[in-house]
Amino acid sequence: MSLLDATLTSISPPAAAARAAAHARLEALAMPYWALGRLLDLAEELAGMTGSTRPPVERKAMVVMAGDHGVVADGVSAYPPEVTVQMVANIVAGGASINALARQVGAQVIVVDMGVAADLGDLRSAVLDRKVAPGTANIARGPAMSREQAIQAVEAGIQVARDLAPTADVFGTGEMGIGNTTPSSAIVAAVTGADALDVAGRGTGLDDDQLQHKVRMIEQSLRVNAVDPADGLDLLAKLGGFEIGGIAGLILGAASMCRPVVVDGFISTAGALVAQAICPLSTEYMIAAHRSVERGHRVALDKLGKRPLLDMDLRLGEGTGAALAMNIVDAAVRVLTEVATFEEASVSHSGA
Amino acid sequence: MSLLDATLTSISPPAAAARAAAHARLEALAMPYWALGRLLDLAEELAGMTGSTRPPVERKAMVVMAGDHGVVADGVSAYPPEVTVQMVANIVAGGASINALARQVGAQVIVVDMGVAADLGDLRSAVLDRKVAPGTANIARGPAMSREQAIQAVEAGIQVARDLAPTADVFGTGEMGIGNTTPSSAIVAAVTGADALDVAGRGTGLDDDQLQHKVRMIEQSLRVNAVDPADGLDLLAKLGGFEIGGIAGLILGAASMCRPVVVDGFISTAGALVAQAICPLSTEYMIAAHRSVERGHRVALDKLGKRPLLDMDLRLGEGTGAALAMNIVDAAVRVLTEVATFEEASVSHSGA
Repeated sequence: MSLLDATLTSISPPAAAARAAAHARLEALAMPYWALGRLLDLAEELAGMTGSTRPPVERKAMVVMAGDHGVVADGVSAYPPEVTVQMVANIVAGGASINALARQVGAQVIVVDMGVAADLGDLRSAVLDRKVAPGTANIARGPAMSREQAIQAVEAGIQVARDLAPTADVFGTGEMGIGNTTPSSAIVAAVTGADALDVAGRGTGLDDDQLQHKVRMIEQSLRVNAVDPADGLDLLAKLGGFEIGGIAGLILGAASMCRPVVVDGFISTAGALVAQAICPLSTEYMIAAHRSVERGHRVALDKLGKRPLLDMDLRLGEGTGAALAMNIVDAAVRVLTEVATFEEASVSHSGA
Repeated sequence: MSLLDATLTSISPPAAAARAAAHARLEALAMPYWALGRLLDLAEELAGMTGSTRPPVERKAMVVMAGDHGVVADGVSAYPPEVTVQMVANIVAGGASINALARQVGAQVIVVDMGVAADLGDLRSAVLDRKVAPGTANIARGPAMSREQAIQAVEAGIQVARDLAPTADVFGTGEMGIGNTTPSSAIVAAVTGADALDVAGRGTGLDDDQLQHKVRMIEQSLRVNAVDPADGLDLLAKLGGFEIGGIAGLILGAASMCRPVVVDGFISTAGALVAQAICPLSTEYMIAAHRSVERGHRVALDKLGKRPLLDMDLRLGEGTGAALAMNIVDAAVRVLTEVATFEEASVSHSGA
């Protein structure tokens, strides 16, 4: 059996017993009923995912998947493609936003070259080499990659999750890839049926004319590629990016090992939608970190069926929103494991 | 000069130069323009408050102000008043939600008896005794306290901030007091002109009939007390609680020392509105932690002029939302102080 098939076979529903036990304890905590709201919802979900009323979340891994995109040749980004490599170098040097926010939560940061268009040179020793190809083909002219390459990208992500498992209780998704809001928008449009206009945002900073052009490129990519949105691998092959495939694989790998995975912003959510299309059950192991300002993220999250934890007008990527949300994950587990019940604290219950 | 007058005299606008320097650095960070959104807004504000481009926020103090309320005699709470003392005991023992969330961010927790109606007995050694009186008078029948007591409560809060200053870079507000959503709703209604119906929530868990009764009690408290909402001390004396006065004082004390103060939920925001009425400039040192589910919090935050960091359906109090938001404060400072600029990271700037 292939790694992908074996992984899909091993994804099970969350543990109902652990979830129920957590729910019962959370209801008994010395506070008005469910008075910590969504923090308690999250604690309950974490218990289900991990199969434990003491969900292990201490060891965190932020995985930054990097890749380039043929469609940038059609002018869909405000930044030149060499920035992908420059930002990989910045992350490796520890100077990027994801490094600062990962340090705050004690998370390791792993950069994976899924398909950067350049030779990484000296950076190679600090980056996992899972390069499928040096950048995708231009989705505005044809498929991004072959179906075989799509499988390769997803399996690379699965393998990254498996390799990190001995040192990671919880995963966070991140990405770096100039131009990658365009394939992400195309994926969201294909999956949700939304108009390109409603899922195309300004990315790293497009003006009105550039945004109009981007919308046309997304429409064209949907026209030239006859996508079957129910077939996650077709979705990825036709419209994807290698890093988006890597994110989908990381999520499937995490789900197969019953580990929670915190999904970052718009591009990560596109990867999550690919994972969901491949295996709907994997959605149960996803935590939506935040609602990005990128247009289209709201409809993508709705399709995923997730309400994000944070809403802070982020639009950076790299996994920054996921790292920030790790604080909330930690807090939820603290409440579940450290707060006394009415009985333990000898507090009078509601008079009702 | 009284402590209150001396404190008000020493509250100055945030430092424009430090704020501008922080803004310039944040604009230069290796990311699309302002791509970490509200995290960058917060970092800039923290620089202004503290007068530093490396805002000190490591040492955190969560101050839980406790008090009882005469209006509970009129049946406005689902819990009996003895729960105030029981929950103080739970916090002192380290088993409350605020303890768990404070531990996560490395914050000390200080409980202050501002006006608990009972003798604290063995708890006295672990609680700061600033008791103004054993519970307020019933605001549905007359003023909560005298103007002298209002000043005493505010000055007690100021003094707590001053006493903690050697070990606290940043403060968080919290409270414990059965019945205290009723005076808070009355304060918010008086300050904003909103109807009692629109600012009265279910507190710790009222049913429809109990909620209607609470609305009537709030309306009655506004009718029997001719409040001048522009006079913060009158507002506090007529409608307040001792812990609400303590919160207002803590904020004024923090502002006078140029220290940020993270304001928790509905009751804390009522305290913040009292502080704002006494000294509008103090608002510049407040950070709104979260939007509570308590009806009326939205209008209170609008009046305060603050957009909250989190929106997680919390309604517990104790300072829990403020403790949770401390993670975001830490993250903002990390970004300001640890992320490289385009120049430092040798990353190509936007092609535009």
